[in-house]
Amino acid sequence: MKVLRTVDQMKALSLEWRSRDYIIGLVPTMGFFHQGHLALMDKARSMADRVVVSLFVNPTQFGPNEDLDRYPRNFEKDKYLATEHDVDCIFFPDAEEMYHPGFQTWVEVTDISQGLCGAFRPGHFRGVATVVLKLFNIVQPDFSVFGLKDYQQVQVIKRMVEDLNIPVKIVTHPIIREPDGLAMSSRNAYLSKDERKSALCLYNAIKIAENMVKNGCKSRAEIKKAVNEHILSYPYTKIDYIFVGNPETLEEQTVFDKKILLALAVHVGKTRLIDNAILES
Amino acid sequence: MKVLRTVDQMKALSLEWRSRDYIIGLVPTMGFFHQGHLALMDKARSMADRVVVSLFVNPTQFGPNEDLDRYPRNFEKDKYLATEHDVDCIFFPDAEEMYHPGFQTWVEVTDISQGLCGAFRPGHFRGVATVVLKLFNIVQPDFSVFGLKDYQQVQVIKRMVEDLNIPVKIVTHPIIREPDGLAMSSRNAYLSKDERKSALCLYNAIKIAENMVKNGCKSRAEIKKAVNEHILSYPYTKIDYIFVGNPETLEEQTVFDKKILLALAVHVGKTRLIDNAILES
Repeated sequence: MKVLRTVDQMKALSLEWRSRDYIIGLVPTMGFFHQGHLALMDKARSMADRVVVSLFVNPTQFGPNEDLDRYPRNFEKDKYLATEHDVDCIFFPDAEEMYHPGFQTWVEVTDISQGLCGAFRPGHFRGVATVVLKLFNIVQPDFSVFGLKDYQQVQVIKRMVEDLNIPVKIVTHPIIREPDGLAMSSRNAYLSKDERKSALCLYNAIKIAENMVKNGCKSRAEIKKAVNEHILSYPYTKIDYIFVGNPETLEEQTVFDKKILLALAVHVGKTRLIDNAILES
Repeated sequence: MKVLRTVDQMKALSLEWRSRDYIIGLVPTMGFFHQGHLALMDKARSMADRVVVSLFVNPTQFGPNEDLDRYPRNFEKDKYLATEHDVDCIFFPDAEEMYHPGFQTWVEVTDISQGLCGAFRPGHFRGVATVVLKLFNIVQPDFSVFGLKDYQQVQVIKRMVEDLNIPVKIVTHPIIREPDGLAMSSRNAYLSKDERKSALCLYNAIKIAENMVKNGCKSRAEIKKAVNEHILSYPYTKIDYIFVGNPETLEEQTVFDKKILLALAVHVGKTRLIDNAILES
């Protein structure tokens, strides 16, 4: 497995692969791999001749008071795991390689970036869209795999790809969970033992909402109330948002469609966790 | 010569050409071809196996009070001229084809888009950068040719290409002028006979500035004063800006370098004209 640190090296390798008509799959990550990342790599492996995993803790998608500096990192372990999962190349640039002096070009997906996490993390999706487009241009993959835990991120990227006619197919993968239901996240490493227990509030609230909808509930207000009460029954929890609405446009809506998105962001102690599910009646 | 109206047709043709390892050159235009456009096509022809000219009067780069509706169009003549200049394909989409319902993704090059025309045409370079990136993704050219009359546009696009790692080489071509010196522009068609005489003020002011610099003038203020006075000595003229500054960053500067950019925007009657030159001492 190759580890490439520069844009030029990555572009050259991609060019060589494309000249041989290889199908290239890209898995963009911020590293500190867990089963969720590994599932994306396996998905890419099953579809591609060559798999690239990018590992870049992108500073432009973190706010000034967020966890950029303490975001967990373990490159040697990541390298070992990527090798085990038959990845062909890790693209591992540093921030200076990705953002040259004078950098000033940004991609913004407007409407769909406003609500949910966008409302609490101004500039976050601008940073995400910009770095993902850069990675697409550098790696030039045929497809790229994203996990659905970052549901809004997937919708932002899909919209960007359609609007800008980007020649990359977006492949999604379901959320991977711990045995008790907690969605896998590198940020779970921040949780203390007690906080880890409270972190289950997101998954359990989703289960409650799923049951309500299965039993015929058609009221967004009732679902939000039940989810809110359940989450706040756990210690250390503070809710950023409970969203119930359109899974495509991310607009709250009055008509309760067959498929409706429930998306949650909850602080457990100092750790911000997200989770989501499509509720089907 | 092919004329393609849809994104899918254009993408398919480009894919076929790239599978044969053809070098593809793109000339983005808004049509109503003059010698300036034709020089860009000839330049592309000299470098490429296949030349695509895009013809799209891009609504998102026009302000609400600008000339989108009356922008001159003559597709049959354009088609004839492109055929004469050995173009392989005109990509000629309509606005609905380029901007689907729900379109919401924008590319912004921030600092370099602020001054000069950007200050008088808010949103203009956002529209330009967005549509050019879309065209690059649709046509996937090896290189693209731009005329230097739109000097700030070229700098915005170069910056976008570098910042977003876009795999397209930007080729520039000098300004093409009428025999008396007026820079060629589709908008020259708007000028009345009297206005056409006044339109020469831009070129003549540039000549005056060039002579001042050749004769040792190092003062931006003196150059701007002379240019200003000369332009206002013509009837029907109203100045948007006279810029003297850094040709790369488009910042005004105190140090007078060997190469300095003079850029002008002047209304002659209702027609807004631009011109520029690099002044060398």
